[in-house]
Amino acid sequence: MATDGKSNLSFVLNKPLDVCFQDKPVPKINSPHDVLVAVNYTGICGSDVHYWLHGAIGHFVVKDPMVLGHESAGTIVAVGDAVKTLSVGDRVALEPGYPCRRCVHCLSGHYNLCPEMRFAATPPYDGTLTGFWTAPVDFCYKLPETVSLQEGALIEPLAVAVHITKQAKIQPGQTVVVMGAGPVGLLCAAVAKAYGASKVVSVDIVPSKLEFAKSFAATHTYLSQRVSPEENARNIIAAADLGEGADAVIDASGAEPSIQAALHVVRQGGHYVQGGMGKDNITFPIMALCIKEVTASGSFRYGSGDYRLAIQLVEQGKVDVKKLVNGVVPFKNAEEAFKKVKEGEVIKILIAGPNENVEGGLDTTVDEKKLKEAKASGDSGCC
Amino acid sequence: MATDGKSNLSFVLNKPLDVCFQDKPVPKINSPHDVLVAVNYTGICGSDVHYWLHGAIGHFVVKDPMVLGHESAGTIVAVGDAVKTLSVGDRVALEPGYPCRRCVHCLSGHYNLCPEMRFAATPPYDGTLTGFWTAPVDFCYKLPETVSLQEGALIEPLAVAVHITKQAKIQPGQTVVVMGAGPVGLLCAAVAKAYGASKVVSVDIVPSKLEFAKSFAATHTYLSQRVSPEENARNIIAAADLGEGADAVIDASGAEPSIQAALHVVRQGGHYVQGGMGKDNITFPIMALCIKEVTASGSFRYGSGDYRLAIQLVEQGKVDVKKLVNGVVPFKNAEEAFKKVKEGEVIKILIAGPNENVEGGLDTTVDEKKLKEAKASGDSGCC
Amino acid sequence: MATDGKSNLSFVLNKPLDVCFQDKPVPKINSPHDVLVAVNYTGICGSDVHYWLHGAIGHFVVKDPMVLGHESAGTIVAVGDAVKTLSVGDRVALEPGYPCRRCVHCLSGHYNLCPEMRFAATPPYDGTLTGFWTAPVDFCYKLPETVSLQEGALIEPLAVAVHITKQAKIQPGQTVVVMGAGPVGLLCAAVAKAYGASKVVSVDIVPSKLEFAKSFAATHTYLSQRVSPEENARNIIAAADLGEGADAVIDASGAEPSIQAALHVVRQGGHYVQGGMGKDNITFPIMALCIKEVTASGSFRYGSGDYRLAIQLVEQGKVDVKKLVNGVVPFKNAEEAFKKVKEGEVIKILIAGPNENVEGGLDTTVDEKKLKEAKASGDSGCC
Amino acid sequence: MATDGKSNLSFVLNKPLDVCFQDKPVPKINSPHDVLVAVNYTGICGSDVHYWLHGAIGHFVVKDPMVLGHESAGTIVAVGDAVKTLSVGDRVALEPGYPCRRCVHCLSGHYNLCPEMRFAATPPYDGTLTGFWTAPVDFCYKLPETVSLQEGALIEPLAVAVHITKQAKIQPGQTVVVMGAGPVGLLCAAVAKAYGASKVVSVDIVPSKLEFAKSFAATHTYLSQRVSPEENARNIIAAADLGEGADAVIDASGAEPSIQAALHVVRQGGHYVQGGMGKDNITFPIMALCIKEVTASGSFRYGSGDYRLAIQLVEQGKVDVKKLVNGVVPFKNAEEAFKKVKEGEVIKILIAGPNENVEGGLDTTVDEKKLKEAKASGDSGCC
Repeated sequence: MATDGKSNLSFVLNKPLDVCFQDKPVPKINSPHDVLVAVNYTGICGSDVHYWLHGAIGHFVVKDPMVLGHESAGTIVAVGDAVKTLSVGDRVALEPGYPCRRCVHCLSGHYNLCPEMRFAATPPYDGTLTGFWTAPVDFCYKLPETVSLQEGALIEPLAVAVHITKQAKIQPGQTVVVMGAGPVGLLCAAVAKAYGASKVVSVDIVPSKLEFAKSFAATHTYLSQRVSPEENARNIIAAADLGEGADAVIDASGAEPSIQAALHVVRQGGHYVQGGMGKDNITFPIMALCIKEVTASGSFRYGSGDYRLAIQLVEQGKVDVKKLVNGVVPFKNAEEAFKKVKEGEVIKILIAGPNENVEGGLDTTVDEKKLKEAKASGDSGCC
Repeated sequence: MATDGKSNLSFVLNKPLDVCFQDKPVPKINSPHDVLVAVNYTGICGSDVHYWLHGAIGHFVVKDPMVLGHESAGTIVAVGDAVKTLSVGDRVALEPGYPCRRCVHCLSGHYNLCPEMRFAATPPYDGTLTGFWTAPVDFCYKLPETVSLQEGALIEPLAVAVHITKQAKIQPGQTVVVMGAGPVGLLCAAVAKAYGASKVVSVDIVPSKLEFAKSFAATHTYLSQRVSPEENARNIIAAADLGEGADAVIDASGAEPSIQAALHVVRQGGHYVQGGMGKDNITFPIMALCIKEVTASGSFRYGSGDYRLAIQLVEQGKVDVKKLVNGVVPFKNAEEAFKKVKEGEVIKILIAGPNENVEGGLDTTVDEKKLKEAKASGDSGCC
Repeated sequence: MATDGKSNLSFVLNKPLDVCFQDKPVPKINSPHDVLVAVNYTGICGSDVHYWLHGAIGHFVVKDPMVLGHESAGTIVAVGDAVKTLSVGDRVALEPGYPCRRCVHCLSGHYNLCPEMRFAATPPYDGTLTGFWTAPVDFCYKLPETVSLQEGALIEPLAVAVHITKQAKIQPGQTVVVMGAGPVGLLCAAVAKAYGASKVVSVDIVPSKLEFAKSFAATHTYLSQRVSPEENARNIIAAADLGEGADAVIDASGAEPSIQAALHVVRQGGHYVQGGMGKDNITFPIMALCIKEVTASGSFRYGSGDYRLAIQLVEQGKVDVKKLVNGVVPFKNAEEAFKKVKEGEVIKILIAGPNENVEGGLDTTVDEKKLKEAKASGDSGCC
Repeated sequence: MATDGKSNLSFVLNKPLDVCFQDKPVPKINSPHDVLVAVNYTGICGSDVHYWLHGAIGHFVVKDPMVLGHESAGTIVAVGDAVKTLSVGDRVALEPGYPCRRCVHCLSGHYNLCPEMRFAATPPYDGTLTGFWTAPVDFCYKLPETVSLQEGALIEPLAVAVHITKQAKIQPGQTVVVMGAGPVGLLCAAVAKAYGASKVVSVDIVPSKLEFAKSFAATHTYLSQRVSPEENARNIIAAADLGEGADAVIDASGAEPSIQAALHVVRQGGHYVQGGMGKDNITFPIMALCIKEVTASGSFRYGSGDYRLAIQLVEQGKVDVKKLVNGVVPFKNAEEAFKKVKEGEVIKILIAGPNENVEGGLDTTVDEKKLKEAKASGDSGCC
């Protein structure tokens, strides 16, 4: 068997700030529609860091030790009897949440809203920072030859951005403002361009992030000021010549002032999407939404078609996810990687699977200036 | 000419709480597409009362004397040369806002968002509490024989409710919660049923309003408690057996606690519409919107097709607007009528045109109990 | 066990016009999410009759003996270990097609387009004219107390009509023309009214069917003439005063002249839905579709939410399916029932399950006139 | 005045194949919202040629002499009193159809369906092959500095393509087949890419057109064979690896075999748009539409936002309309230009305005091969 002699070492969170490595039994294929995947690379998400630091997100509380990680790509090592669409050796991006397929949400095409969702590294379910992973074949997406496994690990956050951006109903020629230039905000900006947006304005409080955003996807940037949301909105409109406002505004920051400005920067009849996670309740300009007939949508994880589109965008060169990766570390250095992310010193860092040989080490040399400033804020437009 | 010897007495607001009657010249038909209408009945809207009391709504400030009123029905007395669809003698409901027809909003079918809108009784434009009124023919809607002129004056608030309810994308069999049981909330409940809603829950803080709502359109009612929005939401769900939440929630109250409860009572993937006017900024459960992927829409006035549908709903007996009328007063008693509305003693009161003979007087006998309680709150889901 | 001593007699089609009764083993629950249902009543669909007569529909060819029937209601007699939402004794409507739940169509909420669909009485899958039937629990819909098992057997064709009518995007106050007044056309007319249609015109070539349509749901009827489609269209518009045409037109006939007239009777920017099955290729007024910017949709079987809405419409009295039933026959008389349907002597006939005691016999006394005329045509807007 | 001493020579069609030049009075600004435009360049559309050859299109019959032309760009020479958004000297693309602004279609944002539309060079209205032209200011679109007047004359057919392609609801990553590689088909292919299509297959019967399509926008091409529509469809799917079919198919040919193949090449649940004009009635695979639940839309001219997007696409370099122009001729050579188009020797030819100095002459040197083959067919996806 392809797993013979291979490690199934896993990176386990026992309780806040208490992690360990544990060799777990290699999982078995339980359904004829499942595949077994050797995990090659895993990115770290804000939610992973949040669990590591606090042991909980909202009402999801880590009670028992839980394997972390859910942004992974891997290689098929075994397939169930009914699997026809993938073969051993195929390289795949892993969609890490498995819905019930039976509830009204699943049957109506909104499986991301399934109340019985089993999502990796959301308690009580283990994550993908492990050697081997089983998944239903339809939640594994074959990577084209031109897309690397490291890029494959970035498909998850890109799918988050695809799902968010879809809600914004962007049409070619429209103008888009993206609040927040963390990983998800950057990816939303890139996806907005793939939807044909003629102007994409990235907004953040960290100058170096905006500099990167400009080089990555944004046509314009705006550094948020400590002024009223109305004034920030007016400034954004002026900076990018948005006329009576942006056709669509995406919040990928979760920050209260950003959301407030979002409602003032969006035009009459425009779209605003809440993608970033933050405080449960905020002060919100409700009359701006009412009088301008804004359509506001929430976005949660990803669903039907999002992974597929994310892979295509990478394949076609429309989103260059490689640019987001600051470095790759060996599995044994996983905790160090978490620290780097926590400290805001990187955009995205990958952890190699336990069976992967990586010299690695973080490439942080080009990010000197960023290192200092970026600590201020980060998005968490994920899960 | 049909206006010979007729009064064009108008009810003019000079400044807050200072009104007078003024005999104005009969307006002339300025465009071949215009008609001249003798105003028969006019309802009083919350916004009329607000101007009367405060002289302003938001940035709309009454600087010069302004005729009040915009909920009117009348009779055609003259038509422009190019008018083919209406004739002298036709009874019509008056849509009281006239857009530019040239901006991107007008050309794309959203004329209610026209920045050059000339809306009756919104400064600096005079309103319809007057003897004669000119309007473009396409903003006058012929009343079917079975619909009275008094019902015709209710078409305006019903069009507001139609426009709000449209945003909720209600499908037959769905469940709807309407926050607020003032005139617009009541009408939204009725329109929701016309869209096929299987359950319509009216929510208010005044028991007598809920009693009326039940007799008017609601299948269920809920008296808001002084508890958390989450708890009110849970109670509403339990009271009407809404499963994981309502398919659609309409706020026709503008009240902060109602809006908060709205976001908690709506199901995953459901719709919430902000119809009621209130404070510019409120504390808002933004993460409920995000995580449940709620679609939120604002609703402002009314647009393409709304008047037409409103008239149909009355004609077909689907919305019995007569029930909302507590009385009709002669034109000379207009100020008295405003006082009644201000004091919350009526749902809807009509003022006859200055050329109309009405014995009238308010029929308030059936409203004894309501009179006392209703003073607490009212909706303003209008303009 | 609840099936002890019970018959699992099944009504089997061997080849065209060659049927038999066969006692099959009671099926077993194979998945923890399955239930076992005793079949109480089954309606006969045009497609059942078509297989009986011709042994094939399109490329679906009956090669091995196949149990007929797919419009059924039954009673739960056993449930799988994971079943929580239904219990033994519950009366249910059976949705008879089971998709793979894994393909792009299933995952995006369009499971009716699943290429691996296992549909009852579509070769090679057996149908529901049998004693016991297993189904995934989420494809069994509990009947409310006020909905009978006989009505439950009509939920299937009503779901077909719901699915068709949904594609027509009917808004309250709109006008709808339904081509064909067979079972599905009649049900579409009723569903259109539940969507708020202000006028519903039923069109057919059989006067008695139109008479029934008027008593069932139609506000207007039109007897098709042997004239050009344009002329029939003009006549329909005149008969129901449809202005520049109908907002939506549903073809539930599959007949070429009906489809042609449909495209001429629909207004500019209106919707036309092809629900009825007929010839693969027809002469079609393509420029009418182009120049009027008509949206045309095909409708195939039913999908997410359709059964649920169908049951609600019956529960709320919006669609009185009982009126469609001309009689109920014992299981042993199944072939006789097929003959009646073939001869067009009934709208809908039910066959009791093999364990059901029915004195029954067809109640055809009220249908004297219809019996003679109805032979001409029937719809097949089903599967 | 800017028109002093200028020619208002016009190119007039008297009857089929009988044209002349006529010096007409310079038109006057009749409304304060109108502008006067000196016409610089005008393209020739299939419909112009059709009127020239046959004197009629459908029920539009040229009874009185009519100026031809409607694909124009020009320069503002005077503005009405109320005009604020354009000034003398501005270069503009002319939208050549003026709706009533008052009917239900206009008010609901579908002014292209206005029954009172006054469309240039559609009888009885004169066209733009003239010296000066008046238009409402909101139907004149300022050209960005980087867009030339010659490109400006191509905005009209590009707007046709934008309107068609919009109906196809293309999402990034989807696959699109465009039937016909005439001017409109080519432009649809380019617009489809701007909507994010990952594959765009151009289909035609002329190899040289496909060659050009590949260099212009198509990712794949297919030369239609004289086989069944089903076989052509299978071949297209195979040629471009479209899986179970194309997400969207646009017919820009109007040709019966193309439309038939379109319905077979579109996937289940996909979109098909009829953009090309052709025979009123054709043999049509209606059951393919029904069973696959295809959504079919007609597209007619252009509407709200289409010109604006067309100009943006040119400005941003997403559609290189210059490539379509084979030459520019002086006004006096207008008839010669019509002959060239009729003979299929060019993709697009421009006629300079009568006040324009053009050395011009057709640049047909690069088109040797095309000249011979292209005579076979042309699209007419216009008006």
